[in-house]
Amino acid sequence: MTRMIHQPDPRLDLVLERIVDVAPELVWAAWTTPEHIKHWFTPAPWKTVDCEIDLRPGGIFRTVMRSPEGKDFPEAGCYLEVIRNERLVWTNALAPGFRPSTPPAAEVGDCRELIFTAVIALEPHGNGTKYTALVMHADAEGRKKHEEMGFHDGWGKALDQLVAYMNKR
Amino acid sequence: MTRMIHQPDPRLDLVLERIVDVAPELVWAAWTTPEHIKHWFTPAPWKTVDCEIDLRPGGIFRTVMRSPEGKDFPEAGCYLEVIRNERLVWTNALAPGFRPSTPPAAEVGDCRELIFTAVIALEPHGNGTKYTALVMHADAEGRKKHEEMGFHDGWGKALDQLVAYMNKR
Repeated sequence: MTRMIHQPDPRLDLVLERIVDVAPELVWAAWTTPEHIKHWFTPAPWKTVDCEIDLRPGGIFRTVMRSPEGKDFPEAGCYLEVIRNERLVWTNALAPGFRPSTPPAAEVGDCRELIFTAVIALEPHGNGTKYTALVMHADAEGRKKHEEMGFHDGWGKALDQLVAYMNKR
Repeated sequence: MTRMIHQPDPRLDLVLERIVDVAPELVWAAWTTPEHIKHWFTPAPWKTVDCEIDLRPGGIFRTVMRSPEGKDFPEAGCYLEVIRNERLVWTNALAPGFRPSTPPAAEVGDCRELIFTAVIALEPHGNGTKYTALVMHADAEGRKKHEEMGFHDGWGKALDQLVAYMNKR
């Protein structure tokens, strides 16, 4: 059984690619350990106040993000591919156990717009890591909306937080 | 890495369970071979006129069903779990490569209602197979809609066709 190749589609996808001075094993740990997630996952002043991880295809990836005003935003998706230290794929289009998810926010008109699948790919690069986050949407509108919501700034800032946190441990 | 256990939720899921006189290996072949799929997948007088299979997590499962009036209904989902002769899981909530799918029919008001994940589980039973199809929906409304569309009759009839076709080969 050969692995999926994830090729970005510029019409539909957003990509953050960066070299970071943290080894792949530590980036992996940061992404797959609830205690670590709480320290870096959400760009400040937002916080991640809870996290649950069952690291296998179909297993839960649940977070609760808290806004600066104190409002909580729980979300639960599931993992699709788990290749230790190399690749982590999860989606919020499916709930834990692969069940199709309910729309993330009933008040949102287009119920598909906040739905995505994320592929985190790690490659050794010197003592650090070539880090690629590929975020796939159903359509161009979803990509555009996510970009306008500040994808590059948000995911970039979260990655800065991951690097700072893992380097000072 | 332990496997997912798929526990039916009676509020959200539909289940077809049956003992059939076809060995698990042949039921598996029927489900995973495009030429076979065309012979049994769609309850007559509907037909399946095309099928494409890339049998790995994230790989395409595409069918084109033709109505008695000659209208074609293409659909492409992807596999999630592939355990030879034992368990096949796929969904139409994700397109090939794990990308979130676009709604299956733009004209449908609730864009989630035709979305499901199917788990086909096979266990040896004498010379035949204990066959379980578990179909998971996002919400109770999805389950109800699918049931009203004739789930039990349709999936049951398709299974009858699978058995008849594999036994006469």
